[in-house]
Amino acid sequence: MSKTVVVVTGIPGVGKSTVLNLATKELIVRGFNVKVFNFGDFMFFTLHSGGLVRSRDEIRRLPIDVQCEAQISAAKEIRREIDSTSDEGKHVFIVDTHAVIKTTSGYWPGLPEDVVKCLRPKAIVIIEADVNEIIARQMRDRSRYRADYADVEILNELLLINRIYAISSATLVNAVVRIIRNKEGQPEKAAQELADLVMVLGNVI
Amino acid sequence: MSKTVVVVTGIPGVGKSTVLNLATKELIVRGFNVKVFNFGDFMFFTLHSGGLVRSRDEIRRLPIDVQCEAQISAAKEIRREIDSTSDEGKHVFIVDTHAVIKTTSGYWPGLPEDVVKCLRPKAIVIIEADVNEIIARQMRDRSRYRADYADVEILNELLLINRIYAISSATLVNAVVRIIRNKEGQPEKAAQELADLVMVLGNVI
Amino acid sequence: MSKTVVVVTGIPGVGKSTVLNLATKELIVRGFNVKVFNFGDFMFFTLHSGGLVRSRDEIRRLPIDVQCEAQISAAKEIRREIDSTSDEGKHVFIVDTHAVIKTTSGYWPGLPEDVVKCLRPKAIVIIEADVNEIIARQMRDRSRYRADYADVEILNELLLINRIYAISSATLVNAVVRIIRNKEGQPEKAAQELADLVMVLGNVI
Repeated sequence: MSKTVVVVTGIPGVGKSTVLNLATKELIVRGFNVKVFNFGDFMFFTLHSGGLVRSRDEIRRLPIDVQCEAQISAAKEIRREIDSTSDEGKHVFIVDTHAVIKTTSGYWPGLPEDVVKCLRPKAIVIIEADVNEIIARQMRDRSRYRADYADVEILNELLLINRIYAISSATLVNAVVRIIRNKEGQPEKAAQELADLVMVLGNVI
Repeated sequence: MSKTVVVVTGIPGVGKSTVLNLATKELIVRGFNVKVFNFGDFMFFTLHSGGLVRSRDEIRRLPIDVQCEAQISAAKEIRREIDSTSDEGKHVFIVDTHAVIKTTSGYWPGLPEDVVKCLRPKAIVIIEADVNEIIARQMRDRSRYRADYADVEILNELLLINRIYAISSATLVNAVVRIIRNKEGQPEKAAQELADLVMVLGNVI
Repeated sequence: MSKTVVVVTGIPGVGKSTVLNLATKELIVRGFNVKVFNFGDFMFFTLHSGGLVRSRDEIRRLPIDVQCEAQISAAKEIRREIDSTSDEGKHVFIVDTHAVIKTTSGYWPGLPEDVVKCLRPKAIVIIEADVNEIIARQMRDRSRYRADYADVEILNELLLINRIYAISSATLVNAVVRIIRNKEGQPEKAAQELADLVMVLGNVI
């Protein structure tokens, strides 16, 4: 009946995974077939099978050309999976990715023109959180956020850059940009907001 | 002799209509043939004749797909009117629209790639106003701004998002982005600025 | 062996020329063939030989159409020189330009879609400096910065607008955006950062 593609982005430490897990459960309860594509996994698979990296952490240290090729391959593979899904029922495809990736070279677009035009999302969601909560989360789980550990000023810059990248990409595919705040201790509320958005986009309400 | 297309945007409450009316009169005095296209009217006409909405307020509650189709239809219709205008005399076409629309789903681009490439404006004007003046204006005319009523923080976010969307669109068509401040009680000044811009763009001075 | 195109931008007064000169020397020491294209020179050459301007200062006062044509001509000429360079050795092509140009009409994109897709840079570098240092530099050399002299508020706006334009352009060609701070008295540090970036982009390290 309906296929809705939503891209969900967020800088490291905003609690994106938790929100996505809760939103997915909520959407299943509401009768959706939900498929979550972790964009990094698709890139890693391409690069790993090509023998270019052993861990996901190594991706952002690769030459930018190689990253670009893996990025477009990942987008095409995700699009192929979406297109090959049966038209029966209410489907929502969530692409878990970044609007911008902080690499050793600089701010690299996560949804450049060719990628976003391949994915054709109806919405680009930005999960945001209070900067101090991001720092606290990074401190609690240093192993995971090692490469992203940052101070208030750097994080505020990154949050702004992230919004600008998301909007640049949205303009190319006429997608809505939705900012969802993930408040400490209330990921269910953010997940609910995301689930409601999918309902609206899928014309279900 | 000359045809100049200018897109004029501004978030609800900045006083765009007043500035546009005054600028139009000023441009006529200066010898221009002025045509103002209200983008929302063109969208409404498409949607209303299709039986999809009864009032303009209902547009932003429609499924995003339907809004997108009406949006590109409106742009094509405006372009058709511009192209069919005689080449005699100095013509200025002002498209009264939004760089971003705050919908129930999120921030929706008012000038996505297909729309802005259809309109091909020389300038995207952003009418801005002091946040407190916007709020005061919304308070004075609650019926009109009901759906847009907002506090300082939300309005500051919207003003920034609006600029980002305008710039993203301008990059696609090599248009100038011009920010015009509409100060309380001085709409004539803002209108004068807009009229002067049209003169410059039309190579008249 | 390798050809790396890097666009270097910065608003007037950040000390871009100094950083570029030092970075060029550093890159030559590191074994690169470096070619710096001053975009304004290429535009000026086109316009001057067409009899449209006598000095570079006059460019931004030209009709926007004429500027647009000169802009795309300049980009094509630079691309031609890049393509005609021998494939032997490590080449870096630095395009010295602006992400946005403040004209009498408004903020004009320095890297609109057609220009940036012609240049195809791997990185768009933004040289930034402290606003008070920019003002001090403009005060010291009033003849050079006459047209750009500005106060703190205007410069902060321009720095933000510059970032937004750079990101919009980067999204179209999947380029990295790199912000390099040029601190007063330490242009060597900024130049080093730029040289290191070129090494990373050229896959040399």
